[in-house]
Amino acid sequence: MRRSGVHLQKWMSQRAGHSNGLGYQVGICSFHTSCKRQKVLTMDTMNPFVKNMEYAVRGPIVIRAGEIEAELNKGISKDFKDVIRANIGDCHATGQKPLTFLRQVVALCTDPDHLMKSPYYPDDAKDRARRILDSCGGHSIGAYSDSAGVRVIREDIARYIEERDGHPSNPDDIFLCTGASDGIKTIMKMLMTGRDGAERAGVMIPIPQYPLYTATIAEYNAYPISYYLDEDNAWSLHASELRRALNEARKHCLPRALVIINPGNPTGQVLSRPNIEEIIKFAKEENLFLLADEVYQHNIYAEGSAFHSFKKVMMEMGPEYREMELASFMSTSKGYMGECGFRGGYCEVINLEPAVKAMQVKSISAKLCSSVSGQTAMDVVVNPPRPGEPSYDLFMKEKNEVLGQLKQKAELVAETFNSVERMSCNPVQGAMYAFPQIYLPEAAVETAKKKGIGADAMYCFELLESTGICVVPGSGFGQKPGTYHFRTTILPPVDKLKEMMERFKKFHVGFMQKYK
Amino acid sequence: MRRSGVHLQKWMSQRAGHSNGLGYQVGICSFHTSCKRQKVLTMDTMNPFVKNMEYAVRGPIVIRAGEIEAELNKGISKDFKDVIRANIGDCHATGQKPLTFLRQVVALCTDPDHLMKSPYYPDDAKDRARRILDSCGGHSIGAYSDSAGVRVIREDIARYIEERDGHPSNPDDIFLCTGASDGIKTIMKMLMTGRDGAERAGVMIPIPQYPLYTATIAEYNAYPISYYLDEDNAWSLHASELRRALNEARKHCLPRALVIINPGNPTGQVLSRPNIEEIIKFAKEENLFLLADEVYQHNIYAEGSAFHSFKKVMMEMGPEYREMELASFMSTSKGYMGECGFRGGYCEVINLEPAVKAMQVKSISAKLCSSVSGQTAMDVVVNPPRPGEPSYDLFMKEKNEVLGQLKQKAELVAETFNSVERMSCNPVQGAMYAFPQIYLPEAAVETAKKKGIGADAMYCFELLESTGICVVPGSGFGQKPGTYHFRTTILPPVDKLKEMMERFKKFHVGFMQKYK
Repeated sequence: MRRSGVHLQKWMSQRAGHSNGLGYQVGICSFHTSCKRQKVLTMDTMNPFVKNMEYAVRGPIVIRAGEIEAELNKGISKDFKDVIRANIGDCHATGQKPLTFLRQVVALCTDPDHLMKSPYYPDDAKDRARRILDSCGGHSIGAYSDSAGVRVIREDIARYIEERDGHPSNPDDIFLCTGASDGIKTIMKMLMTGRDGAERAGVMIPIPQYPLYTATIAEYNAYPISYYLDEDNAWSLHASELRRALNEARKHCLPRALVIINPGNPTGQVLSRPNIEEIIKFAKEENLFLLADEVYQHNIYAEGSAFHSFKKVMMEMGPEYREMELASFMSTSKGYMGECGFRGGYCEVINLEPAVKAMQVKSISAKLCSSVSGQTAMDVVVNPPRPGEPSYDLFMKEKNEVLGQLKQKAELVAETFNSVERMSCNPVQGAMYAFPQIYLPEAAVETAKKKGIGADAMYCFELLESTGICVVPGSGFGQKPGTYHFRTTILPPVDKLKEMMERFKKFHVGFMQKYK
Repeated sequence: MRRSGVHLQKWMSQRAGHSNGLGYQVGICSFHTSCKRQKVLTMDTMNPFVKNMEYAVRGPIVIRAGEIEAELNKGISKDFKDVIRANIGDCHATGQKPLTFLRQVVALCTDPDHLMKSPYYPDDAKDRARRILDSCGGHSIGAYSDSAGVRVIREDIARYIEERDGHPSNPDDIFLCTGASDGIKTIMKMLMTGRDGAERAGVMIPIPQYPLYTATIAEYNAYPISYYLDEDNAWSLHASELRRALNEARKHCLPRALVIINPGNPTGQVLSRPNIEEIIKFAKEENLFLLADEVYQHNIYAEGSAFHSFKKVMMEMGPEYREMELASFMSTSKGYMGECGFRGGYCEVINLEPAVKAMQVKSISAKLCSSVSGQTAMDVVVNPPRPGEPSYDLFMKEKNEVLGQLKQKAELVAETFNSVERMSCNPVQGAMYAFPQIYLPEAAVETAKKKGIGADAMYCFELLESTGICVVPGSGFGQKPGTYHFRTTILPPVDKLKEMMERFKKFHVGFMQKYK
């Protein structure tokens, strides 16, 4: 390498040994052509922020689950006959059937030349497909859409939001995205300062949180401002805790944004309206950009719980709140449809400074657009069959069946966890997860420490090896120090879930015996 | 705002006026509650790297094209009856029909309960759909796939690469992505240093280039190392120019990667094998990670031109080259299928350090997966009907028709541009674009300067206003200072393209008269 110069000194000084300036790797050198080739990308030279990322939902325990499945397939005998993947909110993978109408509309858009003529497909499905195709370039979902998404789909989303909230929504404030994750990253990216250390953007996130947030914060070199949800009060959220977290973080970052996940992931709570008002007041006082992750807005199970969108509450708190910057995220992956693989989602972002909005439009334009079949799936969610349309009855039947079963499963899971010793679980008011606390015996904590792994991770690995049940340790979501949890979905079919709960109880009792 | 403290000083010192520490906006302040609310995100406080991004393919000229379309729809009279969008490689939007077989497989995967029973759909389409569904969670494309993509699709991609190159390919080296863009960003992200100034990662890119590269480099705060393609020699690429560019850039960055677009976008050249060998040698000498954008690998038109993958050439240059790090990108959006809206794509990345590869897998896992319908579309491209299968003849007919017309259009466009005065155009050997040079009269350059816009942009805006033809100024791709170009696609149907060329010629002659 011909490179030399003082500008490399800081970079190189952080590395020991022989370096070519691009990076250092133990025992290998490319300075002398006789040496073995040096990799360009090593752990020392790769993007340190990517290295810092964590995403537990697909972490080592899930990899081990895959290995166990392979072992079972090879005929290796175990105490269980299958792996139950309760680690990820993947509805169809755990047996949920797709909505007939949704798949019909997407199929019609995919092969319209043939299927538009098919008498099997109902007229309301054909009408929706035709309307979407008429809004696509060349009447094809194979054309790029506008970067923000197909125009009529954005109009349908705006109408859906208006009907939901009773307040106007502007299609120009909406962009479709590759699942909600992509939308969240788009908005978070705008909020970054592009600076280091104490000048980094601070983003307030709940603990426990969905790990996309910590992963994105790590990737963008931002600072996570962790606020704790109140486990003793059904994972509710208090402004006093938000303020504590913010004040402690001020020396580390420039606080910019507040993330709320409602209904909660992994915690399953549904925020009350007064709780939401308190949060909005706080965000206004502290001049924070609100990110409302509302992908579980259709997943409300508990008596007395209701979904209140942050936008609706903000609009109704008075004129001084109506100009606050707010982004709300929605997805095709959750709710009653569970269409994760289509990667459909949208973001409504309101009150952006016009020049900033132009930057946001530009920033998504380099991605060209999100999948148009995913956009089509999103359209069905916001524009479902209406009463009187041919598909209405079947659609409502399928929707209510999924939601009814989820409600039943939410209760079953929380009840089971509360029925065993040394464990407690808040009610699963909404979303698709329970996040029970395990009161681990000191001996278990000590054993884990000796093994060099977290005690919750040890519990989950033992659960997996003994029962085939795959859940995610609480540490992947964050938890108060000294407490131990795991996240499980409530998604397996009722019978399977009952079996899973039986396997679980047996394991749990045994585990507590073992470490007594 | 309660925030105060020295750590804000540097941040604030860059801003004038009254600030709350989160940012400054002229005339508005939130320090005093009586003032109008301060936006969290302003042009001063937003991510500066997002602000720096440019993406000309969907820039201001395209917005104006949309306005003109709206004016025509309102009945406003113009010298032309429609807008011809030659700004973006959007095949279906410009009239290309989808491949029957591809859409059949995707439709079968979308509504298998009904369509698998349909006698209309051929067995080879059903077989492929069934095989993909069997590899999906719950046999549904609504389930998340592995982060890297559906296993059998990755196997099919590996087989396709093996057949193409005659060298082994490992499915574990392949990940599916949301169009090639997403894959390119995934790899570029890994290569960033996470540092500022002269410690930024340097990425070598061709000039002219596809603006995704400069946009991504800006977003990641990397340094673009521009090397010029040789317009006088059919946009070929010389190692001497690569070396010049690299040496000049050393004081500004840490060079890490070399991007090659072959066939070229926007330049339409197809690199010869000796040319590729020269590039690979250079990358080895300089220890650069190779990014080969090969999305146009099926789009080769010129006699004597052939596609050589970087991987194949590298493998055949001898053992010392076989361990080089290389990522190659492919897409469903181009080729003969032109399925942009499905956002299908893949990346094969070889010779990654195992620990780095684990990081790469982790980094894509937070995105969950790319659209499974897009993955399905990708599968058809790498696993098309084989001779003897029921869909083979129709598939080949449709494929050859598209490629045959593209060849004809490639010739027509270059010929037309070379037939008018003050203009020259290299042969369109491949890809979907021509990038002609316009020799603008001094008077035009002066007029543009007075108007405060680039002379190429002025030319393109006048072209749009006079003829409805929407092309992208060369400045959006980069060009040698003092030269002026534009990029046009060759995609409109033959008759439309002929009409477009006529409109163009008339405009060009008039423009040259006007500024004579």
